[in-house]
Amino acid sequence: MKAITEYRWFQTKRQRDYINVTDEVAGVVQKSGVREGMVLVSAMHITAGVYVNDAEDGIIQDIDEWLEKLAPSGVDYRHHRTGETNGDAHLKSLLIHHQVMVPVTEGALDLGPWQQIYYAEFDGRRRKRMVIKVMGE
Amino acid sequence: MKAITEYRWFQTKRQRDYINVTDEVAGVVQKSGVREGMVLVSAMHITAGVYVNDAEDGIIQDIDEWLEKLAPSGVDYRHHRTGETNGDAHLKSLLIHHQVMVPVTEGALDLGPWQQIYYAEFDGRRRKRMVIKVMGE
Amino acid sequence: MKAITEYRWFQTKRQRDYINVTDEVAGVVQKSGVREGMVLVSAMHITAGVYVNDAEDGIIQDIDEWLEKLAPSGVDYRHHRTGETNGDAHLKSLLIHHQVMVPVTEGALDLGPWQQIYYAEFDGRRRKRMVIKVMGE
Repeated sequence: MKAITEYRWFQTKRQRDYINVTDEVAGVVQKSGVREGMVLVSAMHITAGVYVNDAEDGIIQDIDEWLEKLAPSGVDYRHHRTGETNGDAHLKSLLIHHQVMVPVTEGALDLGPWQQIYYAEFDGRRRKRMVIKVMGE
Repeated sequence: MKAITEYRWFQTKRQRDYINVTDEVAGVVQKSGVREGMVLVSAMHITAGVYVNDAEDGIIQDIDEWLEKLAPSGVDYRHHRTGETNGDAHLKSLLIHHQVMVPVTEGALDLGPWQQIYYAEFDGRRRKRMVIKVMGE
Repeated sequence: MKAITEYRWFQTKRQRDYINVTDEVAGVVQKSGVREGMVLVSAMHITAGVYVNDAEDGIIQDIDEWLEKLAPSGVDYRHHRTGETNGDAHLKSLLIHHQVMVPVTEGALDLGPWQQIYYAEFDGRRRKRMVIKVMGE
């Protein structure tokens, strides 16, 4: 069995941002030499997410507006009594989920035609980290 | 380590549909010969999901109505400017999530008594694909 | 390849409850002897979830209120025609998701600084089960 673990850092300029990391993940898979296995892509923060969907600007904006509607900012969350102001970012992370597993088949990411892997930042403008772990042989 | 990858195709008659794939997944696990490991069941489209829940008609209809409430169709999504009309299907896929991992223990799916694996179609009436990947030994 | 599977039982006093299981999961990883791999933590019921987020009382209460808002109890769900009363617990389980994968790196859970693993009970006061499965080498 082979396993390889890499980390990627982000520091977005915007509070919320959506970054296509598919090529990054594919690069780690290639480097790993794994032919058959799986790769876990997971945010290492509780105010960020990782999801698989479309690389189309309109739907990305739709997703952002939808997350803001279902897990709004500007609410007086109990979490804010700690001095934090990012309660909504926690809920957005839970809603979109913070991780995905992608199958690795014949040495490549086994994604459908429109599936792209995104890192979703909900509390940006500071350094955040994502883990990419490939396992297989 | 053993790994086996199979694909299943769907073409539902309805726009939205929920298909119990537990037996299909169990069959692939059996065929793999894996005794201890995990199986990834993942939609290969950005307008479909895979989830684990109850095989009870009432709750399936509840789930459908709930998804429609939280990620409604008939909205003028930005994604529709591309000519698409399935913005809601993307959001429903994100909400229910597009994949599950099921433990394989002693050669069988290690599910709780009521847990069943469902493929959830949100933009049907055309060919869609799901991947089943077993890994273990 | 090594694999180890353990189960944990819960019987919460409250209908809904949130239990930090990070130390439990870390203990199973240590016992497994796995240095590089992944651990699946998954509810074995369709009315419970497992998620990764903050061990801060305020945000836990925010999460509970948010789940109750988006997947409310006290609704006449179709599922209730079976005699059940826990339709909301199914939807809450789907919303928060019922499982997570945590990377195991150098023999330990590879979590970010604030990431903690929670078992989320949505239909408590009876015995419920969670599976912890470590795979790697």
